[in-house]
Amino acid sequence: MHSSTMSPDREKLARFADTLADVTDAMAMTYFRKPLDVERKADLSPVTQADRAIEALMRERIAERFPAHGILGEEHENTRLDAAHVWVLDPIDGTKSFVSGMPTFGTLIACLSDGVPELGVISIPPTGERWVGLRGGGAALNGKVCKTSGVTRLADATLYTTTPDMFDETGSARFEALSKKVGMRRFGGDCYAYGLLASGHVDLVLEMNLQPYDYMALVAVVEGAGGVITDWNGKALGLQSDGRVIAAASAALHAEALEVMA
Amino acid sequence: MHSSTMSPDREKLARFADTLADVTDAMAMTYFRKPLDVERKADLSPVTQADRAIEALMRERIAERFPAHGILGEEHENTRLDAAHVWVLDPIDGTKSFVSGMPTFGTLIACLSDGVPELGVISIPPTGERWVGLRGGGAALNGKVCKTSGVTRLADATLYTTTPDMFDETGSARFEALSKKVGMRRFGGDCYAYGLLASGHVDLVLEMNLQPYDYMALVAVVEGAGGVITDWNGKALGLQSDGRVIAAASAALHAEALEVMA
Repeated sequence: MHSSTMSPDREKLARFADTLADVTDAMAMTYFRKPLDVERKADLSPVTQADRAIEALMRERIAERFPAHGILGEEHENTRLDAAHVWVLDPIDGTKSFVSGMPTFGTLIACLSDGVPELGVISIPPTGERWVGLRGGGAALNGKVCKTSGVTRLADATLYTTTPDMFDETGSARFEALSKKVGMRRFGGDCYAYGLLASGHVDLVLEMNLQPYDYMALVAVVEGAGGVITDWNGKALGLQSDGRVIAAASAALHAEALEVMA
Repeated sequence: MHSSTMSPDREKLARFADTLADVTDAMAMTYFRKPLDVERKADLSPVTQADRAIEALMRERIAERFPAHGILGEEHENTRLDAAHVWVLDPIDGTKSFVSGMPTFGTLIACLSDGVPELGVISIPPTGERWVGLRGGGAALNGKVCKTSGVTRLADATLYTTTPDMFDETGSARFEALSKKVGMRRFGGDCYAYGLLASGHVDLVLEMNLQPYDYMALVAVVEGAGGVITDWNGKALGLQSDGRVIAAASAALHAEALEVMA
């Protein structure tokens, strides 16, 4: 982090989010690899007791500390989305990883200021890794500045996506077109793939059908690390985006990827 | 482990393999997420300096301790495959995970006695998890006995495979047929998925185009935990198998899966 570019207000937000993630990490681990009531939502994604309990706790802590702020989460009703500051929360991103014991799920915390992501946290409870990004203030993994690879050519790029099953027919065609041009593609990862991108190990992530709570926390991390993250038309991500997300290690790589997908 | 069912000889082998994995884990971590010369083999899988160095060290230690034993590995020439005991080594299973910073790669160590896997080790350096299985002697994760879920119905099963890209056309059709019957499918994992199966979090793994060093270490772990692992015809895995592997949490689930794939 470059503290010189951080306003006191944002430092306060970042410290609060970090403390919050300490609590949610510990809570997630009490549920991980334990028997759960795995319910089925309308979209068939598994929802766990952990998901709900963690989000309830985050909402409680935010409401105590910042009662005027809005909150958008996965599991509970949205509040004050017209507030200047809105928190966007995903208690467990990667619920399918979580319920199958895979240690790459994460808790996602974003804080938006007038709709723009000021702060993003990707916290991975089983590995103890936590990426924190601040708009204009860099990104860090466990307190150590992290940077994307800076890879500029698709031929040199490693592409991740959580699963080919997330793409519809049109999305699949564009994903396959991109896959043909990259050096390597891999599946799995959920939010973890974006953390790996921020740390320079992965160069591209392409996904669709994401919800705001799936992607808003990624923005400040990826951009803070020097990457680019937008929708598939190259537009900035916001609460109204269509859920199609592309993240790249550099502006040149991002541009080349969008061109191939067009 | 049920020590009553272990011969002294096998206890010695298990202790040796465990000590060996301590050394290889530490070695793998000195290379993980560091710049590497990633070469391309004929099959296009990335081969790292780490892969070669770790296997060379394992071979050296085995040759010192058990000079009469044979060794089959990924990176170096096979020796004495006609010996009564043959070690089968994969220094880094999941090289694509390894080179992209994903912490789910592993080191695989098997010891065969007259072609039958007596001992299997799946060691995951970044997470510190190590599954050890002994034929007829159970399986353990970090010294604690582990068991498969015992799930018997496909509808209740979570299926893993490393990537859909590993299947040829026929394999893909059979994978899709199986996918339609399971509760959930996920991609990613390499050897880690078999460890999760041995610990009861994953119920089925289906893969093809594996090499003996990819699958021989899995056998004693999966079977030791109460699971079933065979080729796609239900035959025991050996050095001459065709590289198509199915692992299941129970005999009933295994049988139902083979039936659906037929």
